[in-house]
Amino acid sequence: MKNITDQQPLVTEISVVTEPPSLQDNTADIDRLRIGARKKLPPALEARPLVVPFAAMAGLGRRFRQAGFGGNALVNVLPHELQLVDFHQEISANIPAMALDLGTTHLEATLVDLTGGEIMAHAHAANGQMRYGADILSRIHYAEGHDEGSSGLVRLQQAVVTTINKMVDDLAGQAGIQQEDIRALSVSGNTTMVHFLLGLSPHHICREPYTPLIGRPDPFFAQDIGLHINQHAPVWILPSIGSYFGGDLIAGILASGLDRMEKTSMLIDVGTNAEVVLGNRDWLIACAGAAGPALEGGVAKMGMRAGPGAIEHVLLDRESWRLQVRTIEDQPAVGICGSGLIELVAQLFLAGIVDIRGKLCRQTGAGSEKRRAFVQERLVEGEDGLSFVVVPAEESGHGKPVLLAQVDLDAMMRSKAAMYAILTTLTSQVGVEFSDLDHIYVAGAFGKHIDPKAAITLGMLPDLPLSTYVPVGNSSLHGAERILMSEEARLRSMDIGRKITYIELNVNQEFMLRFSGSRFIPHTDPALFPSVPVVRVEDVP
Amino acid sequence: MKNITDQQPLVTEISVVTEPPSLQDNTADIDRLRIGARKKLPPALEARPLVVPFAAMAGLGRRFRQAGFGGNALVNVLPHELQLVDFHQEISANIPAMALDLGTTHLEATLVDLTGGEIMAHAHAANGQMRYGADILSRIHYAEGHDEGSSGLVRLQQAVVTTINKMVDDLAGQAGIQQEDIRALSVSGNTTMVHFLLGLSPHHICREPYTPLIGRPDPFFAQDIGLHINQHAPVWILPSIGSYFGGDLIAGILASGLDRMEKTSMLIDVGTNAEVVLGNRDWLIACAGAAGPALEGGVAKMGMRAGPGAIEHVLLDRESWRLQVRTIEDQPAVGICGSGLIELVAQLFLAGIVDIRGKLCRQTGAGSEKRRAFVQERLVEGEDGLSFVVVPAEESGHGKPVLLAQVDLDAMMRSKAAMYAILTTLTSQVGVEFSDLDHIYVAGAFGKHIDPKAAITLGMLPDLPLSTYVPVGNSSLHGAERILMSEEARLRSMDIGRKITYIELNVNQEFMLRFSGSRFIPHTDPALFPSVPVVRVEDVP
Repeated sequence: MKNITDQQPLVTEISVVTEPPSLQDNTADIDRLRIGARKKLPPALEARPLVVPFAAMAGLGRRFRQAGFGGNALVNVLPHELQLVDFHQEISANIPAMALDLGTTHLEATLVDLTGGEIMAHAHAANGQMRYGADILSRIHYAEGHDEGSSGLVRLQQAVVTTINKMVDDLAGQAGIQQEDIRALSVSGNTTMVHFLLGLSPHHICREPYTPLIGRPDPFFAQDIGLHINQHAPVWILPSIGSYFGGDLIAGILASGLDRMEKTSMLIDVGTNAEVVLGNRDWLIACAGAAGPALEGGVAKMGMRAGPGAIEHVLLDRESWRLQVRTIEDQPAVGICGSGLIELVAQLFLAGIVDIRGKLCRQTGAGSEKRRAFVQERLVEGEDGLSFVVVPAEESGHGKPVLLAQVDLDAMMRSKAAMYAILTTLTSQVGVEFSDLDHIYVAGAFGKHIDPKAAITLGMLPDLPLSTYVPVGNSSLHGAERILMSEEARLRSMDIGRKITYIELNVNQEFMLRFSGSRFIPHTDPALFPSVPVVRVEDVP
Repeated sequence: MKNITDQQPLVTEISVVTEPPSLQDNTADIDRLRIGARKKLPPALEARPLVVPFAAMAGLGRRFRQAGFGGNALVNVLPHELQLVDFHQEISANIPAMALDLGTTHLEATLVDLTGGEIMAHAHAANGQMRYGADILSRIHYAEGHDEGSSGLVRLQQAVVTTINKMVDDLAGQAGIQQEDIRALSVSGNTTMVHFLLGLSPHHICREPYTPLIGRPDPFFAQDIGLHINQHAPVWILPSIGSYFGGDLIAGILASGLDRMEKTSMLIDVGTNAEVVLGNRDWLIACAGAAGPALEGGVAKMGMRAGPGAIEHVLLDRESWRLQVRTIEDQPAVGICGSGLIELVAQLFLAGIVDIRGKLCRQTGAGSEKRRAFVQERLVEGEDGLSFVVVPAEESGHGKPVLLAQVDLDAMMRSKAAMYAILTTLTSQVGVEFSDLDHIYVAGAFGKHIDPKAAITLGMLPDLPLSTYVPVGNSSLHGAERILMSEEARLRSMDIGRKITYIELNVNQEFMLRFSGSRFIPHTDPALFPSVPVVRVEDVP
């Protein structure tokens, strides 16, 4: 991914040449450096003050002198000031910076070379906060307690910082650099995760009227929160708009370009929350709701992130009654990721094995012998009730069967119902029909490999021509990468926040009604999904 | 001292009223506060970004909410940004801030109420670095060594921070406030002392071409250097121009107003260095030289700071041969301060007891019996050679005689010679005659009580009408007070630095020649001092 954008990156290098001190000019070293650097600033940056952060002063002076009063200054480019933070004699081969998608369950990061926009490394990690609570609400609860003398909030912050530091180590190792060579960090995460990262109380986030402590933190230094990247690396947090509308979605808007489009489109991001933005370059309206973590993996028993061995595609041949699965990197299956789950349930619904209520169903109807044998073999009764065997133990990667339990299916049904309810609530607010939409950008790890047809079959996404759907991958991460590379993106990220109208769904009656109607496959009103066949078990051959 | 100036103080309070959060407007707390504060900014500050420093975020959000979303925000007013740092429901009765004169041997500070400019408290302390070296050079040497695992530089920084923290404690106690109620600090000190305070290497300050590491540090937070005032208090360091021309003199220029005068005047500040500025509103030229610590007290055996029991005035009646001394607060004498020393030596010179070379002299010439008895009684031979008994043991405050030793006299002679050489070198550089000067402002603890007539007698100051001389007290401290109270002063302090031409005396041949000529009382060329009588011991009655 070369040249994410060629606009002003968050950290830049400026070539400085000065005369060494003499009796005729014994200007202090750092003042000399500052004067020299100011002469070489690009015109767009000339008006900004050029400051030297306190903690950078000693090292900066030493290195400028060691370099013989000429070389290359590293400058943090913030909207209101430039920060002179380091100096080297040689020009840097690259300026590594970290883009981070700070998810509730998983974190994903890339190392971006700010000199050209190349991706140098890529890392994933489970959020170390998981041990304190699987979902946001339980972590907010945990944050407010005390244990062995330290507050839950402190532990949660330390946990996620530890996770990030491990990723820093991973990224640096992959790229063959030192941790302190990483010169900037951009973070897109939901509002609560950002509060935890910053050590801020999330108390009012989950209480009416759902008010975060801060939505637009000013940039700060990596060392302020104990990160092991360069201590003077600026940390840029993508702003959030409300308690349930975080910087991850702002990043998605940036990455998809929704805020610059002439025609109305939609962006859907499904992580722990389903977050949706509708609009164009003139207006943006957004809402978010708890879609449940079922699609994000890590919570459902067999759910997992899209990683090696995760089932991402499922095909049930209803002639031969053979179930084919494809896993990421073709590794033996160890679980199923969001996109695989949606395909699986869609296939099971079309096969009459999941009914319109989303329940696993032993009924064999008038089907063939092969179907009967398939149902017999694949539906098993366990201690948690009925489960569907996606991959038997002998074929899996961990010696246990990969199962779809009813409880997982229930979670997925809530998620898909919430998603559709959100989409319809939002469009009805502004009087837009689904058919008016130019494109629907589907983001999230969930969106990376999703088959829109399967999602339509389940009634999760509206029944539109498949060409309407554009997968945009982890747009939260891609937006964070843009933040690193482009000042225009940084300014836009703040502007988007001001431009968006946010609808709070947690108190929206209309949403609750629509949610109820969506808890069937595809919907209580099948006319909304003309392309989805009506499945009657007794008719399945 | 009411209303040092009524211009924008370094920290200001802004009354903020906002609507509490609601479902219709659940803007995050700190964003709400920022929007509310921005509406109430004075027009002069509107264009500046209003930032929330990272470390202030959590507390600010909590207190804004506790105050019910309305009250008073404390804002640090920096040239390029405003920092929102605290919030209280009630308006502050006062906003205490500390002005500090950071001297090599002594520190002096005042607590200024930024709401009106009143001085709330006043404190002195000996510089805790004294134990590591009496003068700047020995401390620079100490800074470069290591001892018990910590560098000398670290120890020097800790020593002065400890001294300042004791003064903070003292000031807070006097004013009946908490240490964290002190909301800002301005510091005027010589370049080396500022480097030590900031933990910066002074290595190149004393080595040709005498280049400091930094002259114009950006403001930082008190906690960055371990000060016990409010952790978000901005620390404003008065800029320095060269290794030997520090912020203390910039402060003096600010306090005297030299940079705004139509007629050419001069500012003399004698501390450990003699620093001199010549100029007017159109130009300023400055130089500094090691005048020796003799006049500052604390180094010479009997020298002391102008404090209770310090001899500040001396009168030797050459009829009765009685020596009268006046001490500060009329306490029994325990030492002699700079101004007392100058008067004493001038009187002894006029009495023929100190000769034109500055040597104590037993010669009794043709004088009276009384004079002979006086010399007999007062000149004593000790292990360090000849001394003059200023106050006998039985009349002193510490049971020991207050002595003027020849070694002290030698130090004073070097100081006075350096001072006059500096003054003549500087004026000759720009072709100004002493008689062209409108005023000579005499600053420093030294200048507070100085008798210009005595200084002229010694050939320390030029032989001008006494009305030319204006004592300005501790102008370093007064300049620091102005920095706290006035943005115009803060901007001027940076502007003065750019405007001054600085002459390095340490490498100036002319200075060395002039210095030699000045090592006599009053001078090798008595024609320069027409008002000073030529004293011949044999003629003293």
